[in-house]
Amino acid sequence: MSRYVRNNIAAMTGYTPGEQPQRDDVVKLNTNENPYPPSPAVLDAMAHITAEQLRRYPSPTAAAFREAAADVHGLTPANIIATNGGDELLRLLITTFVEPGAKIVTPQPTYSLYPVLAAIADCPIEQIDRDADWSLPDDFAQQVIDRDGKLALIVNPHAPSGQLTSGPKLRAIAEALQGQAVLVVDEAYVDFVDPEAGHDLLPMVREVENLVLLRSMSKGYSLAGLRMGYGVAHETLIEPMMSKTKDSYNVDAVAHALATAAIRDRAYALHSAMKVREQRAWLRDQLGALGWAVGESASNFLLATVPENFAGGAMAVYEALKSEGIFVRYFDQQRLHDKLRITVGTAPQNRRLIEALQRMA
Amino acid sequence: MSRYVRNNIAAMTGYTPGEQPQRDDVVKLNTNENPYPPSPAVLDAMAHITAEQLRRYPSPTAAAFREAAADVHGLTPANIIATNGGDELLRLLITTFVEPGAKIVTPQPTYSLYPVLAAIADCPIEQIDRDADWSLPDDFAQQVIDRDGKLALIVNPHAPSGQLTSGPKLRAIAEALQGQAVLVVDEAYVDFVDPEAGHDLLPMVREVENLVLLRSMSKGYSLAGLRMGYGVAHETLIEPMMSKTKDSYNVDAVAHALATAAIRDRAYALHSAMKVREQRAWLRDQLGALGWAVGESASNFLLATVPENFAGGAMAVYEALKSEGIFVRYFDQQRLHDKLRITVGTAPQNRRLIEALQRMA
Repeated sequence: MSRYVRNNIAAMTGYTPGEQPQRDDVVKLNTNENPYPPSPAVLDAMAHITAEQLRRYPSPTAAAFREAAADVHGLTPANIIATNGGDELLRLLITTFVEPGAKIVTPQPTYSLYPVLAAIADCPIEQIDRDADWSLPDDFAQQVIDRDGKLALIVNPHAPSGQLTSGPKLRAIAEALQGQAVLVVDEAYVDFVDPEAGHDLLPMVREVENLVLLRSMSKGYSLAGLRMGYGVAHETLIEPMMSKTKDSYNVDAVAHALATAAIRDRAYALHSAMKVREQRAWLRDQLGALGWAVGESASNFLLATVPENFAGGAMAVYEALKSEGIFVRYFDQQRLHDKLRITVGTAPQNRRLIEALQRMA
Repeated sequence: MSRYVRNNIAAMTGYTPGEQPQRDDVVKLNTNENPYPPSPAVLDAMAHITAEQLRRYPSPTAAAFREAAADVHGLTPANIIATNGGDELLRLLITTFVEPGAKIVTPQPTYSLYPVLAAIADCPIEQIDRDADWSLPDDFAQQVIDRDGKLALIVNPHAPSGQLTSGPKLRAIAEALQGQAVLVVDEAYVDFVDPEAGHDLLPMVREVENLVLLRSMSKGYSLAGLRMGYGVAHETLIEPMMSKTKDSYNVDAVAHALATAAIRDRAYALHSAMKVREQRAWLRDQLGALGWAVGESASNFLLATVPENFAGGAMAVYEALKSEGIFVRYFDQQRLHDKLRITVGTAPQNRRLIEALQRMA
């Protein structure tokens, strides 16, 4: 390690991205990509990008995308910030709202990037155990206050379980934290919640001054390659990130144009999410028939407990699947050692997985 | 301002990007874009982007680009980090190598983003005056040491003067700073240096362990819209940024593919830079004929002193040009009040500027 590196950076461990096999013949159910392609409107927008758009600086504020997102969500552009993936928004939230040394609180297990971002900012992270059924402890807000947390990060639907915490429960947490902390609800997977659930936190940002919703174009819009996320919040939280802490031109001209086309074709994304939900139900049934315990998921993945008749447990099944070109996610982590997180794929991909597991049973 | 914002963020002023008029009929000589389009190989690469590349996560390490850049520069990928514009590299350098509160030193005037990034990181910035002829003070390294600077930022060719500091002089500064500070030479404009000058700092990074070169695809490769920059340094400086502090997928799949195509077509970029140098010489002569004092520039812009026969001075000329649809840059800043920074445009653009100035003389 170079002697010029800061002490906290030298001491920390970086984030490990999921495996990205370069072969095209694998069944890739390990990083929660949407199995269906993006809207044709996206490819059409790409065909219309000009050399002139590449030559010139892009819109520093990603104006067209923010207008489109505001339209779709019934908000104003002042409630939206576009970011280079949801990851950039998480970093900006820490940079803007958390002094070095102040505490960040998250229920765990959680998205493994959160502790990494906290370590980079030299902020201690306090991880509060989720209940046995993965639900958020009822006294979560009180625990944040007791620990003097300044930022709380909740991924919802939860990763890796897929469980959904209700809007009213989250609103109550945000309200309890007023004056104490900013509450970030990471809704990277929210596009896969069944619309019949009526789950919608968006209108809350007009009234709740310390609530930030993270949205991603990676999953619901099948654009993980594009790195486009956005934040939705009260304009007093968006403004300092827009005018002070984000990189000057954080979203490039191509990502801007393509993401704008994608979010304007909301009908396509809704249809894609519906297909994912159908496959999710099928996959859950099939895993259940093999004796795997699988909780309900509102997301595009399932967290499944590997039963004892699968020799060697979750780790061995993960390795055996990998050797057949089927990638799922194993977490070497407390409470998850007997489980696998499986991204919902296309019907043929899910069948290939189930057939492979049937052979192992 | 929201009560949740950190004190240093609340107190600071953000970066102001140059004006980006949306009309297509303007002569835009204010933000140092390359006036010529990017290589046809870039558009060809875009035509080959697939829906599958958009759907999947991109290479977290931007592997293909780093290999291409290493080939072009005679280095290895371990010497290269790809970033979301050069701006991201600047931010990463501060995050990785400068403790909050430690000092950042830069000769001034300079790129106005540096003080903004320092303020975000809560680091004091010490600005050391350049000499009357814009050259770097001979005792610059000693001044960094005296102030206990931990990062020194030098833009070279210098902005806004275009002056080039020699490789040996910069190497001597880096060596004098060993054990004290990381020296960043921001080479955003280096592609416009006349090749006959033999200016080349790249081989130094193998030997000098505290030297970082910032490169950009925005200017030399006509890709400002794409947000693609990169850092070149000793691998011990690159490694902690790659494995710890950069966002997990900081470069998107499209920018990655297009920038890789661009840097592999180095011949095109060299030809484009040659045309810029020809136009730079023409423009400098013409401004000189109008009585404007213009220093030599190794970049794609000129810093020109507005003579007294132009009523109202630099600010008035800037406004008058703007009203004709010609955008140049005026800096409301010490030592620059009587000057304009003019990006070198295409031959017709430069002629339009000169004709407008002839009418004002």
